[in-house]
Amino acid sequence: MTGALVSTCELCAHQATPAWSLVFQGPLLRVVRVLDAPEFPAFYRVIWQAHVAEMSDLLAADRQHLMDTVNTVEGVLRTSLQPTKINLAAFGNMVPHLHWHVIARFDWDSHFPQPVWGTAQRTPVPAAVDRLIAPLVEVDARIVAALTA
Amino acid sequence: MTGALVSTCELCAHQATPAWSLVFQGPLLRVVRVLDAPEFPAFYRVIWQAHVAEMSDLLAADRQHLMDTVNTVEGVLRTSLQPTKINLAAFGNMVPHLHWHVIARFDWDSHFPQPVWGTAQRTPVPAAVDRLIAPLVEVDARIVAALTA
Repeated sequence: MTGALVSTCELCAHQATPAWSLVFQGPLLRVVRVLDAPEFPAFYRVIWQAHVAEMSDLLAADRQHLMDTVNTVEGVLRTSLQPTKINLAAFGNMVPHLHWHVIARFDWDSHFPQPVWGTAQRTPVPAAVDRLIAPLVEVDARIVAALTA
Repeated sequence: MTGALVSTCELCAHQATPAWSLVFQGPLLRVVRVLDAPEFPAFYRVIWQAHVAEMSDLLAADRQHLMDTVNTVEGVLRTSLQPTKINLAAFGNMVPHLHWHVIARFDWDSHFPQPVWGTAQRTPVPAAVDRLIAPLVEVDARIVAALTA
């Protein structure tokens, strides 16, 4: 199921923007790393290429492919960064184009244990990106390797 | 994969509480409806019975079973309530016991288009529960029917 693109949808129109970098490009989905939330440096999105709103709009095989990809990204984040917790979410309230947030959370991060959409709890010093135990470009490369293995 | 229960975990210890009602009970997972967030009356959780933290802790077949159940709940919410959007999330930052939030969102609800964990946007009048086009006990029954079909 590929489906149409919608020119007014920012996820259809842009493969990469200053807000995120393209990590992996596939026929059915892509993986990007979010750049505009520096307090959560290990914040990835898995974006379905076709403009559908809900998981239940997908065929079962496509749904499984998407969740397998989310799971692969989760696995790389866990092994690379040893986060306190992984957070997964698919909202689409603002942009009703199916995408998953996959976020490595740490007990020292600005919002933990609140969701990243909740209330800040603290200001980490040093900054979040300087606390990660692996460079994000290396995490990106491991995601690509895992998705193309 | 059934696994251990942990007596200090609220999701292991309680099958139902004043905060939620039990909708469906299976060997591997249960479905509850959240009662302590009246601004989001169609708020369900799919809770894995065993005390594991992350989706990637599950075997592939179990992960698929869990997401199939999430998808079934989503489908019943869509057909029963015609929400503006479905929101799915698995955080577990507070209670690191795998559970999915499945929430029917409406463009008139208190927080839309923000996540339910974000900032309130308005106070709906009449109240949310009075705007739903089907009674929640009927939605519960449809979820049970769909999961036992």
